[in-house]
Amino acid sequence: MERIDVALIGAGRMGQIHGPNAALHPGLRLKYVVDPRPGAAMPLCDRFGATAATLDRALADPGVGAVLVCSSTDQHLVHALAAVEAGKAVFCEKPIDLDLQKVLQARARFDGARFLLGFNRRFDPAFRALKQRLDAGDTGRLETLHLVNHDPAAPPPGFVPTSGGLFKDFTIHDLDLARWLLGEEPVRVYTAASCLVDPEIGRLDDVDTARTLLSTASGRLCVISNTRRSGYGYDQRIEAFCSRGMLRAGNVHGDTVCTLTPDASTAAAILPGFPERYRDAYRAQIDHFADVVHGRAEPLVGYADGIAALELAEACQASLRTGTAIQP
Amino acid sequence: MERIDVALIGAGRMGQIHGPNAALHPGLRLKYVVDPRPGAAMPLCDRFGATAATLDRALADPGVGAVLVCSSTDQHLVHALAAVEAGKAVFCEKPIDLDLQKVLQARARFDGARFLLGFNRRFDPAFRALKQRLDAGDTGRLETLHLVNHDPAAPPPGFVPTSGGLFKDFTIHDLDLARWLLGEEPVRVYTAASCLVDPEIGRLDDVDTARTLLSTASGRLCVISNTRRSGYGYDQRIEAFCSRGMLRAGNVHGDTVCTLTPDASTAAAILPGFPERYRDAYRAQIDHFADVVHGRAEPLVGYADGIAALELAEACQASLRTGTAIQP
Amino acid sequence: MERIDVALIGAGRMGQIHGPNAALHPGLRLKYVVDPRPGAAMPLCDRFGATAATLDRALADPGVGAVLVCSSTDQHLVHALAAVEAGKAVFCEKPIDLDLQKVLQARARFDGARFLLGFNRRFDPAFRALKQRLDAGDTGRLETLHLVNHDPAAPPPGFVPTSGGLFKDFTIHDLDLARWLLGEEPVRVYTAASCLVDPEIGRLDDVDTARTLLSTASGRLCVISNTRRSGYGYDQRIEAFCSRGMLRAGNVHGDTVCTLTPDASTAAAILPGFPERYRDAYRAQIDHFADVVHGRAEPLVGYADGIAALELAEACQASLRTGTAIQP
Amino acid sequence: MERIDVALIGAGRMGQIHGPNAALHPGLRLKYVVDPRPGAAMPLCDRFGATAATLDRALADPGVGAVLVCSSTDQHLVHALAAVEAGKAVFCEKPIDLDLQKVLQARARFDGARFLLGFNRRFDPAFRALKQRLDAGDTGRLETLHLVNHDPAAPPPGFVPTSGGLFKDFTIHDLDLARWLLGEEPVRVYTAASCLVDPEIGRLDDVDTARTLLSTASGRLCVISNTRRSGYGYDQRIEAFCSRGMLRAGNVHGDTVCTLTPDASTAAAILPGFPERYRDAYRAQIDHFADVVHGRAEPLVGYADGIAALELAEACQASLRTGTAIQP
Repeated sequence: MERIDVALIGAGRMGQIHGPNAALHPGLRLKYVVDPRPGAAMPLCDRFGATAATLDRALADPGVGAVLVCSSTDQHLVHALAAVEAGKAVFCEKPIDLDLQKVLQARARFDGARFLLGFNRRFDPAFRALKQRLDAGDTGRLETLHLVNHDPAAPPPGFVPTSGGLFKDFTIHDLDLARWLLGEEPVRVYTAASCLVDPEIGRLDDVDTARTLLSTASGRLCVISNTRRSGYGYDQRIEAFCSRGMLRAGNVHGDTVCTLTPDASTAAAILPGFPERYRDAYRAQIDHFADVVHGRAEPLVGYADGIAALELAEACQASLRTGTAIQP
Repeated sequence: MERIDVALIGAGRMGQIHGPNAALHPGLRLKYVVDPRPGAAMPLCDRFGATAATLDRALADPGVGAVLVCSSTDQHLVHALAAVEAGKAVFCEKPIDLDLQKVLQARARFDGARFLLGFNRRFDPAFRALKQRLDAGDTGRLETLHLVNHDPAAPPPGFVPTSGGLFKDFTIHDLDLARWLLGEEPVRVYTAASCLVDPEIGRLDDVDTARTLLSTASGRLCVISNTRRSGYGYDQRIEAFCSRGMLRAGNVHGDTVCTLTPDASTAAAILPGFPERYRDAYRAQIDHFADVVHGRAEPLVGYADGIAALELAEACQASLRTGTAIQP
Repeated sequence: MERIDVALIGAGRMGQIHGPNAALHPGLRLKYVVDPRPGAAMPLCDRFGATAATLDRALADPGVGAVLVCSSTDQHLVHALAAVEAGKAVFCEKPIDLDLQKVLQARARFDGARFLLGFNRRFDPAFRALKQRLDAGDTGRLETLHLVNHDPAAPPPGFVPTSGGLFKDFTIHDLDLARWLLGEEPVRVYTAASCLVDPEIGRLDDVDTARTLLSTASGRLCVISNTRRSGYGYDQRIEAFCSRGMLRAGNVHGDTVCTLTPDASTAAAILPGFPERYRDAYRAQIDHFADVVHGRAEPLVGYADGIAALELAEACQASLRTGTAIQP
Repeated sequence: MERIDVALIGAGRMGQIHGPNAALHPGLRLKYVVDPRPGAAMPLCDRFGATAATLDRALADPGVGAVLVCSSTDQHLVHALAAVEAGKAVFCEKPIDLDLQKVLQARARFDGARFLLGFNRRFDPAFRALKQRLDAGDTGRLETLHLVNHDPAAPPPGFVPTSGGLFKDFTIHDLDLARWLLGEEPVRVYTAASCLVDPEIGRLDDVDTARTLLSTASGRLCVISNTRRSGYGYDQRIEAFCSRGMLRAGNVHGDTVCTLTPDASTAAAILPGFPERYRDAYRAQIDHFADVVHGRAEPLVGYADGIAALELAEACQASLRTGTAIQP
């Protein structure tokens, strides 16, 4: 397979995941790493033979066919736009932006772009297997969904103010999953939430524990269960209740070793966090992006999906603020 | 142990469960079976050496120390009152009555009575084990709950009109479980529900699929997941999310046999219905009632619990009717 | 169903299990309890309305159709013979006798008798389900077997001398299971064993830890894994490896409650001993015996099965003594 | 970390696994690929920037610090010797050679060599976790072991004649595992085996189904369960029975998706073969080899381990031939 050159924008937490996956993909070559922080790009450049560059230089290189936008959230939209307008295929970490208005305003400029939005759960092999069986209809028609998304530990104090809050930063993954699995748009959103984990989060006007209930026009119901601190690992589950049975994607445990004593059967804990749990999902996501870059596939998650999830996240916020169900 | 005579009122579905459990208990003797339907009492009388009798005769017998009220729902309150006023210890199937006003009006007459209400889930050994660990605090402070109560198959058409509807007939179990486990009263109730299983249920102005979200004053959240027809068995689960870990009571599968092939690992289905799933709970419930009858224990579930659960069920109905959250 | 009177011989550990099961069976009535120890019969008599009696009296009662032989092992054969010659249907705890010669000599006198030998594992619902699937051939032809039979804790010191030793007392269950599942007689037996649990067992010339390897004429292989003290509960498992898949009957855990923490997923231990693990098997065994008593079934385990298992147990002993494989 | 140059000898099935793992290791660089078959080295060279070379050239390069011997089994010893004598650190696929005499004769020439033998199971994360707990003694003293090693499907017809037979090719992994876990050498070996999978294997004087029973001087027992064709995937399990409990490393299933219906709970099959099952073990093995190459660790599996496993494999063969237990 011919290798197409890729520029990575942002060598932070997500760039450290997507950059290597692209570099190791047989159809991509990591050519540039763009990061304003001095030295941040170096380790990736050293390891994969890439070059540290400015955004302008990377986008100006006609050999660069694709860009991975992994910068800070407030730069996603600016960088994605620049890359799209330079004619590159773009993978963009979620969310597009925290400001729905900005996202709506930029919408037209993404028409026809090869733009893949980073809702990684859609690429998790277990979740995909569940979706395929759902679509195959073996257990009948989908009626209700239960989505569990519990982070292991509360974010550091400085994270909250720029995060967009629980719903735009975290629940947004589940809102996208819900749309994908329900096959229908939610028409009503109700959210109850509390600050039980860290009072500092409450002082910053955010919540850390929430339950959201979505209803669709045909009567399907979906519960989203969120917490910022599970206390037991990264709990990521889907239960899909259908007319003739139930499909479940369970947690992944650290290993298969079990200790039996007269008191208990003790097995490994569930995986501790997203890098382990979604390792294969991140790879599959880049595999799909490579297919997009090579013109072999249309992006499975696009700009419109980013808008829809953001609108639902705002509906959660509005429901929480007003104490009523909201029509998004 | 001395055996105390018991009268069973109602030889229907629940009477067929509680009657034998009482008859086989070493501290109870099944003396009378009361049922207006000719012949209904006979099989139980034959099997356990009991006598078919009228309610009056059974209550007039001073040797009868305890009464099991297993009549039709609309007779629970009348029969329980008669038994209490005859000085008997009373076990009464849930709900006390479908009409909250009647239940409230009769309240004073149950003051001081030995009255055990049949919320069987509180006696399930797995649920009790979970409760004990919750109380022991090994996983920290309880924050949120997830209760799953899915019936295997929709009730027969004639059942709905007299059932009291999904919330008073079915969800009421979960509302009681929630109160028991949360250790706090819900202060806000939101319910979303649909008729997805059987349109006839909808025509009778009931729903068959619901999600209810309870919030307490301290910010604890509880989701209740209900359906009248799971399509895969009797799904009965509790998940209790705490500050330092999670406690889960899972489904019981039919056996431990597993078949491994290149395509799948196939294990037994979950238990099909309440008689199998709560077999041990029903026994433990009668064990506890025997302790009450013998003066060795106070009833763990009383008249006030019946009122509280009924009030919450009415709040679910009101939330569904108005589309808003309700303060019960 | 007409109830047929039963006499229980022996009110010890096994009599306390089989007696109540017979008493509660709708087709049997526990009429006599025979036990030479003063007072031993009383609790069962009181609970089920039976009468303490001598063996002679019980066997002389023409209304007694069936006898449960639960006396000490050295009395099994004498009591079974007396009951058979009195024309009763006989359920006899295993083993028939520890002395193979005696068992062979008495063989002819059991011709035509309604005699059920107490190999309880054949009645375990999970093991029966596994056998049915094996016979149905869904996973192809059986090739090899793995049987695990680990007792939770070493027997009390006084037990060993009269027990018959590990193979005749304990492994004999697995030797019968192997014959039942293999559908072929073992033609070669090799046993390796040690005394690892309790040196006192070794001083009494017995072993407490053994592995036995059976081969059949068609080349099927079976491993039997035994220990007198598992250290973690009563480990009872079957794995049947077939040409197109594997069937497994796993351990039963105490409940379904699980605790998740960052360090582990902790579930209930396996059941601690045979009364819990084989509770349903013992009931099913008496159900089958009732069918035999009522003339509705032929005994599924007979005198010849007792001989065959005993012969294999002696082959294990001979293999251990000689260090070679033995043709039984 | 400085990268040390590596030469890969053999670009076949195992070379395709170890070569990329070395190439992607931050402390190694894949410099040469040696394979006599024209073109066989090319894909690896292309992908990782290595050079196709003759053995002589690769060994003559003083920059090459390490060699991976992944040639055909009959070349392992020759290639390993050449590399050792050229002063390179050597990773060698198992077995060293099928001919024990040759291996013994060459022994002295490996004295002091940095030589790691490819018994991959010792590097499996789950097996290592089990070993650590065993060594930590949490479940007491090890008494018995059960090792399951079932290949998914019979090897192609041409494989058997040069394979060394079931014991030297396949069981040898378990013999090494047994030595590692028992912490004691087996002093007695008994093997029963059959040809049940493919009559052609029998015609070639080999077996495809075997059970081996090892005993140690202290009385520990170990069962090894082998088949060439499981019919349900790659069954790889360890059970370690200790004085106070049991440790188990179970199979890995393909994903966590489960389907519940009224008839069954259906989960994913176990992994189909060694590339998936031991993917992480192969990586950890190369990680360890890199530590050896960099002088940070002594090889965990050495030449003497290869001899010991081969001697045990010959004891299995002798036991099968003679029908008796063998002292290796």
